[in-house]
Amino acid sequence: MSGTLYGVGTGPGDPELLTLKAVRALEHADVIAYFAKAGNESNARRSVTAHLNGAIELPLLYPVTTEIDSRDDAYRVSIGRFYQDSADRIAAHLEAGRNVAVLSEGDPFFYGSYMHLHVRLAPRFATEVIPGVTAMSGCWSSAGVPIVQGDDVLSVLPGTLPEGEITRRLSDSQAAVIMKVGRNLPKIRRAIEAAGKLPQAIYVERGTMANGRTMPLADKADDKAPYFAIVLVPGWSGRP
Amino acid sequence: MSGTLYGVGTGPGDPELLTLKAVRALEHADVIAYFAKAGNESNARRSVTAHLNGAIELPLLYPVTTEIDSRDDAYRVSIGRFYQDSADRIAAHLEAGRNVAVLSEGDPFFYGSYMHLHVRLAPRFATEVIPGVTAMSGCWSSAGVPIVQGDDVLSVLPGTLPEGEITRRLSDSQAAVIMKVGRNLPKIRRAIEAAGKLPQAIYVERGTMANGRTMPLADKADDKAPYFAIVLVPGWSGRP
Repeated sequence: MSGTLYGVGTGPGDPELLTLKAVRALEHADVIAYFAKAGNESNARRSVTAHLNGAIELPLLYPVTTEIDSRDDAYRVSIGRFYQDSADRIAAHLEAGRNVAVLSEGDPFFYGSYMHLHVRLAPRFATEVIPGVTAMSGCWSSAGVPIVQGDDVLSVLPGTLPEGEITRRLSDSQAAVIMKVGRNLPKIRRAIEAAGKLPQAIYVERGTMANGRTMPLADKADDKAPYFAIVLVPGWSGRP
Repeated sequence: MSGTLYGVGTGPGDPELLTLKAVRALEHADVIAYFAKAGNESNARRSVTAHLNGAIELPLLYPVTTEIDSRDDAYRVSIGRFYQDSADRIAAHLEAGRNVAVLSEGDPFFYGSYMHLHVRLAPRFATEVIPGVTAMSGCWSSAGVPIVQGDDVLSVLPGTLPEGEITRRLSDSQAAVIMKVGRNLPKIRRAIEAAGKLPQAIYVERGTMANGRTMPLADKADDKAPYFAIVLVPGWSGRP
């Protein structure tokens, strides 16, 4: 009998933000797989250290990350092959009857690489997706910033969008979360200023981790930001 | 010494989707408060039953919910007084040195009533917000539907928006989640059809609960839906 594939959301970084369901899936997994950049520790792997039970570990190392533009054909070919190869390696374990838990920072179906495995394996194997606390929830909670209420519209925007696009969408929503900040920070800052929302914008780095930092974006003096930093533009400030 | 106020995200309904941090906060709370509609059981309260330790329970019963339009002045006055009164009752416990955990379905700062208490009490008392798995994450995970990837824009829309607004925003985003479905379902269905996205839209009722239901919106024959049903319009279908 084949094993089951679990997509396990590991939350925003604080190991205490794992769900009970994720913990049980990890304790019963025969194989723990996780994506990582070669030479970097996986944040998801670090969050679950306390719950591993001698399972086989299967790191899946990206052949490229941000060195090539993701719209480039070379990127698409390389990353497509990598996901297929990763799916094949996991399929071999599932066929041998082993349960495989794939760790996914935040929530597996919310910008997570796990979905590339899911679409390839779900037609052939039993799967279960265990949702997790997203990075953005971790960020607005640790910042103490209510994000949306009542009939607010929330836009989740990648920082890779063109400047005018970001301004337009900020002006058209009560609240926004801008992901993938990194080298896009100067552009994001200008876009928020043009939308008249700099006073309420909050910059968050490593949300719920011990070394996290939160500050008004207006107070951030430099333009250095890690790729996974987030900017929050809250829609709510005390109604009714 | 005053107690600490905890805003505790209890997740989308499945008690296994509580976080370890939420469980610890509940086990150490002296008072457990939760919002509910008079005569209805609180879903948040039900999710945490296994973790209560003889704490004082403080149900906070809404004076109105959907009987009056939320844009009506009578609604604003009534609900504003209710939040102030609830904050006062919690403040009395905090002043007596008791730790108070306020349960919040999903994530406290994501459309949660907890934020009305937070803005009133955070200036005077120590607070900690424990993020939770949102209802929307629970829904797309149980439906097995990856929602966003790469540079997708996600719009979170209340079903109370005008029909043309919903169509316009659906046409302008890769992915969308429509909340507060209830009696808005016929309008939402027309708006999704006008945006050409009916084939991929998914209707989800009671996401991760035992009696949950998921189906393509196109297959839903009637227009009956509970207020907390969700419609998912996924932005992703297998790239790269």
